[in-house]
Amino acid sequence: MKLGEGVEAAIHCAAMLAGVDGNSTMSGAAMAEAFGLSPSYLLKHLNQLTTARILESVPGPAGGYRLARPAERITLLNIVLAVEGREPAFRCGEIRQRGPVKLDASAYVKPCGINAAMLRAERAYRAALAEAKLSDIVADFMKDADPRTVAASCVFVERHQRLQKFNSQAKRER
Amino acid sequence: MKLGEGVEAAIHCAAMLAGVDGNSTMSGAAMAEAFGLSPSYLLKHLNQLTTARILESVPGPAGGYRLARPAERITLLNIVLAVEGREPAFRCGEIRQRGPVKLDASAYVKPCGINAAMLRAERAYRAALAEAKLSDIVADFMKDADPRTVAASCVFVERHQRLQKFNSQAKRER
Repeated sequence: MKLGEGVEAAIHCAAMLAGVDGNSTMSGAAMAEAFGLSPSYLLKHLNQLTTARILESVPGPAGGYRLARPAERITLLNIVLAVEGREPAFRCGEIRQRGPVKLDASAYVKPCGINAAMLRAERAYRAALAEAKLSDIVADFMKDADPRTVAASCVFVERHQRLQKFNSQAKRER
Repeated sequence: MKLGEGVEAAIHCAAMLAGVDGNSTMSGAAMAEAFGLSPSYLLKHLNQLTTARILESVPGPAGGYRLARPAERITLLNIVLAVEGREPAFRCGEIRQRGPVKLDASAYVKPCGINAAMLRAERAYRAALAEAKLSDIVADFMKDADPRTVAASCVFVERHQRLQKFNSQAKRER
């Protein structure tokens, strides 16, 4: 079982965007620089987060990305599903039906017990991810990480965030 | 996130082997037939289960595979790790260290909080898989599946199991 590398990038970017002031944005290029990633690689994952309405993309010269809702209402499950898709990890191929004895479809109405057991485990996984809020990830980082990395992150955000002239939508107040 | 298709094949084969009599075996070719799989494809996964000591492989003309221990002591976690490997699904690439500000390694001694949160979820997944015993999968199948599929499975096992002449090791009594 393997999650794509995009998950790590997506969570780090969302956590960084949780730190921008008010309704400011940050460009994809800045986030790519922050994590040593190629901007085109990262763009794909920022688009996935935008499609899933975790981020919003602001056009224009001062544009970029910002969280679409407060970090308290974004979970690791939201991010993982946005990047990896909503399908379960175990995809039942119904091989129980492929054998030499051909029974009609009515014999397979009940789901395979193996699939059911695998899906139970997946629900436990998703429940744990749903408990992990982005706001907690950020709070734990500020509290527990080495002070030098916290300071470096704050300086980076301060330098790269783009203040928005107009705040008609008051995004951060929602 | 995606598990390989081999997991489904491996669990079905182990469940089928839980049904053979005493220390009888079943050939890989028979199991491949049971699930409409290519024998060479299945062989890879039977080898993984054998390496992990979930199955044992008996050589010779009446040889084949059988469970290496009672189905009560085999879990879905054992099988999933045997096929997919023991690495966690989330593999931290330490992208937090790749940014423009170079801090020395001592700033990253504490694990990244994102990695820690992802590993917590993985522990929940593995705990759920560890609770699912192969013996329960088989018991639920016998109790809940359509009686026609249960009957067809029993006939298949009866026809394809290979009784062993010598039972010096009394494998099923362990």
